[in-house]
Amino acid sequence: MSTAGPAGAADTADVVAELVAALPDGMVVTDPTITEGYRQDRALDSAAGTPLAVVRPHRTDEVQTVLRWASAHRVPVITRGAGTGLSGGATAVDGGIVLSTEKMRAITVDPVTQTAVCQPGLLNAEVKKAVAEHGLWYPPDPSSFEICSIGGNIATNAGGLCCVKYGVTTDYVLGVEVVLADGTAVRLGGPRLKDVAGFSLTRLFVGSEGALGVVTEATLRLLPAQPPSCVVVATFASVRQACEAVLEVAGRMRPAMLEFMDAAAVNAVEDKLRMGLDRDAAAMLVAASDERGAAGSEDIALIGSVFTEHGAKEVFSTDDPTEGEEFIAARRYAIPAVEAKGPLLLEDVGVPLPALADLVVGIEQIAAEQQVLISVIAHAGDGNTHPLIVHDPADAENTRRAQVAYGQIMELALSLGGTITGEHGVGRLKRPWLGDQLGEEVMALNRRIKDALDPAGILNPGAAI
Amino acid sequence: MSTAGPAGAADTADVVAELVAALPDGMVVTDPTITEGYRQDRALDSAAGTPLAVVRPHRTDEVQTVLRWASAHRVPVITRGAGTGLSGGATAVDGGIVLSTEKMRAITVDPVTQTAVCQPGLLNAEVKKAVAEHGLWYPPDPSSFEICSIGGNIATNAGGLCCVKYGVTTDYVLGVEVVLADGTAVRLGGPRLKDVAGFSLTRLFVGSEGALGVVTEATLRLLPAQPPSCVVVATFASVRQACEAVLEVAGRMRPAMLEFMDAAAVNAVEDKLRMGLDRDAAAMLVAASDERGAAGSEDIALIGSVFTEHGAKEVFSTDDPTEGEEFIAARRYAIPAVEAKGPLLLEDVGVPLPALADLVVGIEQIAAEQQVLISVIAHAGDGNTHPLIVHDPADAENTRRAQVAYGQIMELALSLGGTITGEHGVGRLKRPWLGDQLGEEVMALNRRIKDALDPAGILNPGAAI
Repeated sequence: MSTAGPAGAADTADVVAELVAALPDGMVVTDPTITEGYRQDRALDSAAGTPLAVVRPHRTDEVQTVLRWASAHRVPVITRGAGTGLSGGATAVDGGIVLSTEKMRAITVDPVTQTAVCQPGLLNAEVKKAVAEHGLWYPPDPSSFEICSIGGNIATNAGGLCCVKYGVTTDYVLGVEVVLADGTAVRLGGPRLKDVAGFSLTRLFVGSEGALGVVTEATLRLLPAQPPSCVVVATFASVRQACEAVLEVAGRMRPAMLEFMDAAAVNAVEDKLRMGLDRDAAAMLVAASDERGAAGSEDIALIGSVFTEHGAKEVFSTDDPTEGEEFIAARRYAIPAVEAKGPLLLEDVGVPLPALADLVVGIEQIAAEQQVLISVIAHAGDGNTHPLIVHDPADAENTRRAQVAYGQIMELALSLGGTITGEHGVGRLKRPWLGDQLGEEVMALNRRIKDALDPAGILNPGAAI
Repeated sequence: MSTAGPAGAADTADVVAELVAALPDGMVVTDPTITEGYRQDRALDSAAGTPLAVVRPHRTDEVQTVLRWASAHRVPVITRGAGTGLSGGATAVDGGIVLSTEKMRAITVDPVTQTAVCQPGLLNAEVKKAVAEHGLWYPPDPSSFEICSIGGNIATNAGGLCCVKYGVTTDYVLGVEVVLADGTAVRLGGPRLKDVAGFSLTRLFVGSEGALGVVTEATLRLLPAQPPSCVVVATFASVRQACEAVLEVAGRMRPAMLEFMDAAAVNAVEDKLRMGLDRDAAAMLVAASDERGAAGSEDIALIGSVFTEHGAKEVFSTDDPTEGEEFIAARRYAIPAVEAKGPLLLEDVGVPLPALADLVVGIEQIAAEQQVLISVIAHAGDGNTHPLIVHDPADAENTRRAQVAYGQIMELALSLGGTITGEHGVGRLKRPWLGDQLGEEVMALNRRIKDALDPAGILNPGAAI
């Protein structure tokens, strides 16, 4: 084993050459015009380093080769899915490599056990499509589902819109194959709905942001195809009324979706889509029920009446799935629509549901105080919000204020009993606030797990914890 | 810190006296007529030791006192819920203490966030009842739900009958308070449906069988009250036909329950309940749908037609919940009914669903070979079976054969890609087979987690891994 510490340029070239020689031709990329594209994920971390190389394996044994080499030379390994992460979990570091799973794209679907076995590089939408061909459904649906990878979803324990009813990624991962820091490959769990032999290690690796091992295969639990949804949309004159309506709906039933958009998001979407959304509304809610038959319409009628009781300006409902999908698409389009106003710092704070109104109103106050545009969209039914902080990177003062707001939003969420991240992960951008949420003793516990599984600290150093 | 190793009798008395002095009067019990009742759980492990004391705390800080004391003196701590475990996870060890959570029984229900915060000593049925008062439902339903504790459910990641649709205990634990080996108390997760800050430690502690820490409080996720179920029951002339029917149902829909009983179980129940069950059937299936409105009846009609296509002798369905509940009760009554034939070794093996028929038929062969009565009941929809091995403890040869069968059943399950335990836990009884399932590398990985969290090995030594 080599000693730790920075190597000279000649040493580095030798070390990289060793990896190149150990893998098939072309798998290790050092061309800077290509590696440049792997320095940042969608968090666009300006502190991103320059990787020694980008490695794009196809198979588990190749990942093992990479990890054995990295362990021997103490080279940091940043595992990257589709690069759509919003917390900088896949930001490259100087002297490290980027291990991209983009070429690991195999999937097999077993309709009999309602499971799929897939490699991490497949996009979420590709998984959904492959299983839909068998009449099955993989529920987790991050807004980025068309461009994010299933491996990245597992790394962050990604959520989405349907989670309020169907849970998050970890609820659908029955097993994983993981390559550990030293190159050992282990299989945990498998295609069994119940299996309690040994500790719950599958669940430990889900959400570990590449800091405990590299997931090279996952066994996913599938459901029968989702029934068509009935949708109800309402606008409100006040954010607080909308949040109170959310609270009552969530306490009375279990919608398949319960989403929130503030005025800025509604207007940004309307600018682009010209759907006739109410530009004067302070907030819009979009709710869905996928209960079968009459139960779906009953749910929507109940939700509509709760919205009305809470002062909704307008309530529109439909059991036509195509019409309903237009409103869901409007909600999904909110991030790109707001992004058209300028680059975003994309937040992901969550609170217990009764604190949702205080969070959203508090974020309005932060925006006013820092004089930045912050549009709030939310998976309201599970209390998970995405404040979108628009800023101008060319304006240093504006950027500074945006960053202050970013921190203040997390502090606000924590003061309300919330979390700094509901579904995006801690990555590098949120690390300064993690200790405030978890406290010293839980941080120490996380560190004990990290040290047990990655004693040399080569896996995604600087991220996750 | 004291050194490890056996202490003399005088030393031991001093050590116990220190614990007695540190806790409220009466909390530490050393009266052998009482402690005798804490030596074994329902696995009735004949190798059970005699504890130094039984400690029955009410509060987390008292558990911390116990663990600090145990760490200082290297005293093994066996945490015990209601003592209904079937794998010997709460078997007492010589020189250790039993930490009973039976007096930790507080619960608060928050209908707004649909969560409950409870201490571990509450029974599963008590949790269900407390939340039902708010129109809510805690789904996991081990057959022993009326006598098993929620802490034990968390320790084993318990399942039950509704898991085929609703998942297992870990899917309903949003957060835990845990006292670690050194007495530190940490809070992990909380009343947020989405929270990915830090590693998924809540999920790691669920299913850890008291070997990583002592869960002193849990935040449970609740659902709206379960709609009434429609039920369909069918009998089959062959076990294989019944298993094939299960496979087809599971591949086409998602029943709320899909249970299997073999001829011995049907007859044992009929002996007791005189319901008019078909004593000549080789197998009986009980399925339920809790979809709302007409969808439930549609499901039951579909399941019934699948049963008929697979050669069912008789199919009976009902949308009367009371009538349906009688058949579910018959299934729940199978264990006590078979137990009336003699003491049971209660197995818990699971397989991927396509292997279910081979597992059940293979168990019949093992029973014939070992000349012991083995009745198979199963949560068939998730491939989790409970072979009930009847034996006579007074007959050494019969007991030996029962134990051979116990091992052979696990080996059979493993040969079919299955697990040695679907929902009961490894405990002490299944440890000899755990390595066969997990393999050396995964065992080593489990050991690294154990060593990181319990370096002195005082937490439930000899169990779980």
